[in-house]
Amino acid sequence: MFHVIDPRVFERPLLDELCALATRARLLAKSDTGARALRDLLPTRRAMLYFTQPSTRTFLSFNNACHILGMRTSEIRDPSTSSEVKGESFEDSIRTFSSYVDVIIMRTKESGRAAQAAQLMNGIPRPVPVINAGSGSDQHPTQALLDIYTLQRSFEETGGIDGKVIGMMGDLKRGRTVRSLCYLMKNYRGVRLVFIAPEQFAMQSDVKAHLDEHRIPYTETPRLDDALPSLDALYVTRMQTEWDTAARESQAVDLARFSIGPPELSRLKRDAIIMHPLPRGPEIAPAVDQDPRAMYWRQERNGMWMRAAVLIKIFGAEDRIADGT
Amino acid sequence: MFHVIDPRVFERPLLDELCALATRARLLAKSDTGARALRDLLPTRRAMLYFTQPSTRTFLSFNNACHILGMRTSEIRDPSTSSEVKGESFEDSIRTFSSYVDVIIMRTKESGRAAQAAQLMNGIPRPVPVINAGSGSDQHPTQALLDIYTLQRSFEETGGIDGKVIGMMGDLKRGRTVRSLCYLMKNYRGVRLVFIAPEQFAMQSDVKAHLDEHRIPYTETPRLDDALPSLDALYVTRMQTEWDTAARESQAVDLARFSIGPPELSRLKRDAIIMHPLPRGPEIAPAVDQDPRAMYWRQERNGMWMRAAVLIKIFGAEDRIADGT
Amino acid sequence: MFHVIDPRVFERPLLDELCALATRARLLAKSDTGARALRDLLPTRRAMLYFTQPSTRTFLSFNNACHILGMRTSEIRDPSTSSEVKGESFEDSIRTFSSYVDVIIMRTKESGRAAQAAQLMNGIPRPVPVINAGSGSDQHPTQALLDIYTLQRSFEETGGIDGKVIGMMGDLKRGRTVRSLCYLMKNYRGVRLVFIAPEQFAMQSDVKAHLDEHRIPYTETPRLDDALPSLDALYVTRMQTEWDTAARESQAVDLARFSIGPPELSRLKRDAIIMHPLPRGPEIAPAVDQDPRAMYWRQERNGMWMRAAVLIKIFGAEDRIADGT
Repeated sequence: MFHVIDPRVFERPLLDELCALATRARLLAKSDTGARALRDLLPTRRAMLYFTQPSTRTFLSFNNACHILGMRTSEIRDPSTSSEVKGESFEDSIRTFSSYVDVIIMRTKESGRAAQAAQLMNGIPRPVPVINAGSGSDQHPTQALLDIYTLQRSFEETGGIDGKVIGMMGDLKRGRTVRSLCYLMKNYRGVRLVFIAPEQFAMQSDVKAHLDEHRIPYTETPRLDDALPSLDALYVTRMQTEWDTAARESQAVDLARFSIGPPELSRLKRDAIIMHPLPRGPEIAPAVDQDPRAMYWRQERNGMWMRAAVLIKIFGAEDRIADGT
Repeated sequence: MFHVIDPRVFERPLLDELCALATRARLLAKSDTGARALRDLLPTRRAMLYFTQPSTRTFLSFNNACHILGMRTSEIRDPSTSSEVKGESFEDSIRTFSSYVDVIIMRTKESGRAAQAAQLMNGIPRPVPVINAGSGSDQHPTQALLDIYTLQRSFEETGGIDGKVIGMMGDLKRGRTVRSLCYLMKNYRGVRLVFIAPEQFAMQSDVKAHLDEHRIPYTETPRLDDALPSLDALYVTRMQTEWDTAARESQAVDLARFSIGPPELSRLKRDAIIMHPLPRGPEIAPAVDQDPRAMYWRQERNGMWMRAAVLIKIFGAEDRIADGT
Repeated sequence: MFHVIDPRVFERPLLDELCALATRARLLAKSDTGARALRDLLPTRRAMLYFTQPSTRTFLSFNNACHILGMRTSEIRDPSTSSEVKGESFEDSIRTFSSYVDVIIMRTKESGRAAQAAQLMNGIPRPVPVINAGSGSDQHPTQALLDIYTLQRSFEETGGIDGKVIGMMGDLKRGRTVRSLCYLMKNYRGVRLVFIAPEQFAMQSDVKAHLDEHRIPYTETPRLDDALPSLDALYVTRMQTEWDTAARESQAVDLARFSIGPPELSRLKRDAIIMHPLPRGPEIAPAVDQDPRAMYWRQERNGMWMRAAVLIKIFGAEDRIADGT
């Protein structure tokens, strides 16, 4: 593992290894000795967090994952403080970052930037790994990994992800998290997907073609109530209004039909889980937070552990963490 | 000690302990061995500095207090880089921070936010302490603590704070530092207060009621010259023009009458001290800096040591620092 | 060495020592043991990076140099987050920084600020060193140092900088890097300079007077082609359009005549080097990057090692790094 750009390349052994690493880091951190061992894992490594698209969660979880492992971080979050205002090319900016750090973690509003940066690295004498932390409407690989980790943790005592029925609700057309997650389902046996979305924001055909190719069954419905009783997991997403065109197409959706609150909870299986990539809008009522099936806050925190796992793997420190450090 | 929200709850034993901890940290830092021991005190702890209201001093002193103790810090200082631009609620933002760090240090322009965050923490499964680093025109507890620490250090050889005459000058109505400090005076015996303010910015009645209740004598005067000879400490504050309404009421004040320069110095006791929370305006002439009674720069630096003491106390590391680490 | 403000005071023994320190740090960092030793060099020191003028490279190289040595950093990059918005004076802001950290590294748009800060420090009881990281159109000492280091490394096996022919091309009038570098040439024997610039951006007379005084020969020409074959190093610079007046004088220059691409490469000595302070504009074609004589990316990275050397020297840790730590 060098660059982390596209989750579609992840295969089951790597997913299982990363989940195990995340759990190992998470458990170690519970004791002072373990937390100090983690901090001594990558103390000489430095990361660049280049986040020109605003992001609280992804930024903070990466930053703290680095800190847990003893890494140091530099950040550019405001494009106006960068050399690009002097007209520097994107390529030169990225190469400059690589001069000073050991890994570049980047998030941009424009699509394809992380892949472009990785490709640039592959052509220079001193390449550093590039981690895609969100690149326009492209894939968002570490989000997909933390979603997998949350599913696996939640189903640890019920046979794992294999054989589960996973619902995905909301703006499935533009939500990159659900798209990425779908691509990873080929690694699990017997999974069934249920897409619950308004017609104009249905899951796109490239994803469905991929599912067909890998014989992963899915159904589509605009009615949450019909789908609820069958689900082992319900992955809720918000309307991605920031990608709306001038027609403000999100406005036409009756959001109440794609939301979860106390009435819906009563129809959900007793051991099902509710996920959400956060931040949330009105699609999950705050009252749901109290329900033991609400897994999104733990999911959020899983993101930090999974990102720590990715960094451990990239820097080849997995052996030192596995043997109890 | 978990959350640090309102200085009015601080009692004498805690104040004395925090002052002792601040001194202990300050002295340890003077040697390389001691500084390394401090840095090894909380190396696995992580802080979130959430400062949506600009603040150089409070931010830097907290950030460096964390660093002195080996802690790692993440920061949000520009609200436009946060998820709130995607419409996330304040509660969800705070809970998100708590997912990644061990303490939230926050400063907001709006009142009541820190208390609200602390209350939220009290209702979730994995709460982290919240430190109020200034919340609108509310209390500013760590400022009050550093002021107490400065008074105590300055009066170390003259019997401590008990029995001293403390003048407070300037915009007493809206200055939260002097308000907070007044509330702490009940912990000291025989203190007398002198409020020196223009009529329209006199100390507010809630503070005066509190002083009456605790039988702490105070006098009010608009004439600095009359008050000067009696003072052991003069706490100068600036006009809080940022809270002015459209009427720009600050403009009406004759600032020269509430300022200190060489002429006033000559009327001040030889062993009195001059304090100021900084930043200063014209109310203290730069020439005063050279006077040995000018204590505000040391007061500023005391803020870093007191904030380190607060963090040590919150994380229960006081025993490890007390025994010479 | 305390403050680092003006490169004109650097003499040969110091330059040689800093180059040796930079190399020592660079080589140590190649092994895990060495990198950990570096990180244990200044673990209790804290730096303030006060960068009110945007700068990617200088900021990141200083930040990472600090991190390599185990130092902690605080930053102000956005003037709107600082107390200056409350009307604090520059002097008070700088003194405030000095309250919390062990070194102030600063970059400002206005000239003379770093020198002003250093002077202020010299008059207070607890001064900290100030490093000028660029101050208007003034000197930029650490850039000059990294340029010297790059020249020295490149000519290590060909007798060092002494006796070399160094071309400087582009906006020599306003480029502070070439100006600073000229002032350092008096420390090397037999160096010849060739200034290649459009007439309106020729090297200024103060620099030429300095060269005359120290009997350093230089020639001036607007024709790169004539100069190319004689050069051991070509230092290319971009048009400093940000200093243009309303007349936009940069627009009048035929940039193609002061650029380097494949045709120029063929006329350059086989063992010559091409330098550039970056960011670059059109004056160096990206295709040049592939040429082994292109030294600007290494030069950029040298900046981090030289800045680490400066910090090591300022804090007197050079003995601990010299003996293998």
